[in-house]
Amino acid sequence: MSLLIVGTVAFDAVETPHGKVGRMLGGAATYSAVAASYFAPVRLVSVVGEDFTHREHAVFRGRPIDTGGLERAPGRSFFWSGRYTADMNDRVTLDTQLNVLAEFDPKLPEHYRDSPFVFLSNLQPKVQHGVLRQMRRKPRLVALDTMNYWIEGALAELRAVLRRVHVLLINDAEARQLSGRHNLLDAAERIHAMGPRVVVIKRGEHGAILVRGRRVFSVPGMPLRRVFDPTGAGDSFAGGFLGVLAASARLDEVALRRAMIYGSVMGSFAVEKFGLERLRRLTRKEIRARARQFQELTRFEL
Amino acid sequence: MSLLIVGTVAFDAVETPHGKVGRMLGGAATYSAVAASYFAPVRLVSVVGEDFTHREHAVFRGRPIDTGGLERAPGRSFFWSGRYTADMNDRVTLDTQLNVLAEFDPKLPEHYRDSPFVFLSNLQPKVQHGVLRQMRRKPRLVALDTMNYWIEGALAELRAVLRRVHVLLINDAEARQLSGRHNLLDAAERIHAMGPRVVVIKRGEHGAILVRGRRVFSVPGMPLRRVFDPTGAGDSFAGGFLGVLAASARLDEVALRRAMIYGSVMGSFAVEKFGLERLRRLTRKEIRARARQFQELTRFEL
Repeated sequence: MSLLIVGTVAFDAVETPHGKVGRMLGGAATYSAVAASYFAPVRLVSVVGEDFTHREHAVFRGRPIDTGGLERAPGRSFFWSGRYTADMNDRVTLDTQLNVLAEFDPKLPEHYRDSPFVFLSNLQPKVQHGVLRQMRRKPRLVALDTMNYWIEGALAELRAVLRRVHVLLINDAEARQLSGRHNLLDAAERIHAMGPRVVVIKRGEHGAILVRGRRVFSVPGMPLRRVFDPTGAGDSFAGGFLGVLAASARLDEVALRRAMIYGSVMGSFAVEKFGLERLRRLTRKEIRARARQFQELTRFEL
Repeated sequence: MSLLIVGTVAFDAVETPHGKVGRMLGGAATYSAVAASYFAPVRLVSVVGEDFTHREHAVFRGRPIDTGGLERAPGRSFFWSGRYTADMNDRVTLDTQLNVLAEFDPKLPEHYRDSPFVFLSNLQPKVQHGVLRQMRRKPRLVALDTMNYWIEGALAELRAVLRRVHVLLINDAEARQLSGRHNLLDAAERIHAMGPRVVVIKRGEHGAILVRGRRVFSVPGMPLRRVFDPTGAGDSFAGGFLGVLAASARLDEVALRRAMIYGSVMGSFAVEKFGLERLRRLTRKEIRARARQFQELTRFEL
């Protein structure tokens, strides 16, 4: 079934201990859409500027990604620039230029409005809510990602949209900030009370946990020899996670856990090269092999 | 089969966000011996001062812990005092008084010298090596724990004893320091070359990984509602890990992974109350149930 993804399509400049890229395609929606497209058809909603050419557009071609909702506006695309610390666990934002994103007010194409799966990736909560309001019928599953900036600056709007969200994807620091609780089980319980009955907490190299009431699932990070560029790892995780759910006949614990593994698979590929380079050139065989590596990594007998 | 454990039996003063204990029994050998004793007979080697009374000795009674190697010396026992940060992920040492440990030169009782399993818990590397030299025959398995203090101040001695060690148990910061490599797979590879063919890297609340050549096993931390006192968690992990191996007929990948789970089980219990309070009052049923919780926490189908 189709997965509607709304979020940023952007240009990034990234510096890591392994090198520096001055300007490359990025953005949360780009990473999630490409990751999800290996599993399910995607309907993309975003805005780009005049600097987004057919060269950039190529990342979506040849994939089940509908770009009917990719608006083009006068001006330049959203731009983000950042530098990672030596251990890759932290990053400093050097520059953010909203550009066309400043006025972004997504209008869903008519045929998007019955999408059964919706991912509201990190954006101004009011914009996320606006997308939900345009749905013709209640989606089977709505997932949302957000960040400290909105928790600090748009909490009321965020809490309003959260009431309509089933799955919140968030990192550990954000989960603590949103809930006011340090312990992640306490934090998840508080977030459950805000709406999302499933809380996925992303912990970078330490993996991710899924909390659903009293049930907890933990997947470790895949130990990798080389991490080139962590940009987009969380968005790729979200794309893999939601793509697998959209392709699944059921949404129970087994399906959610399976989705967590494929989310981790896509996140682990994303960091192996700069930008989308690794993610866009995957084969199904590589994806299956990496999923089996997660099995091998965690398997034990009592 | 018997597990010889050499290390500290101490008094600790601990401050955590949940409270403060002025003086309680602690020490790496105490935690590991109690944890291991649920699985295999333990032979303890340590030194205590005159302040160690029958009240403290009670922690070893009624368990398969041979205290024939627990030397009593004039003076006071080793004392450590520390304070944990609000998130429990870091601690500050407030005071260390070596006392009787300063002159500790362990003499193994005759019947200890054929122990098939040996755990050299964190101590001056020369003292660890001295214990190995007293063994009548080569043990089936020798494991060692160490810390930044010895990596910085006694590296040559540490590397000398490491050549005779099969399993190194170490935390992530120490693995990086010892190997000079940030990436944990690179670090483990370097440590393999120093002797230990199995490297267990403890990551606190993030769990632990076992690296053995190209094989990697990862166990996540058990998400807990309340962490009262992290003191001794790593030592309890080591005790559970080695106790299970000592009780196992084999030392292959299956056995090592199973040991990692029981190590994690014992570490997760240790932090639930101050000092040894939780660890010393466990039932086999509780241990089995927690091991099954690890299974439930990590189980998935592709």
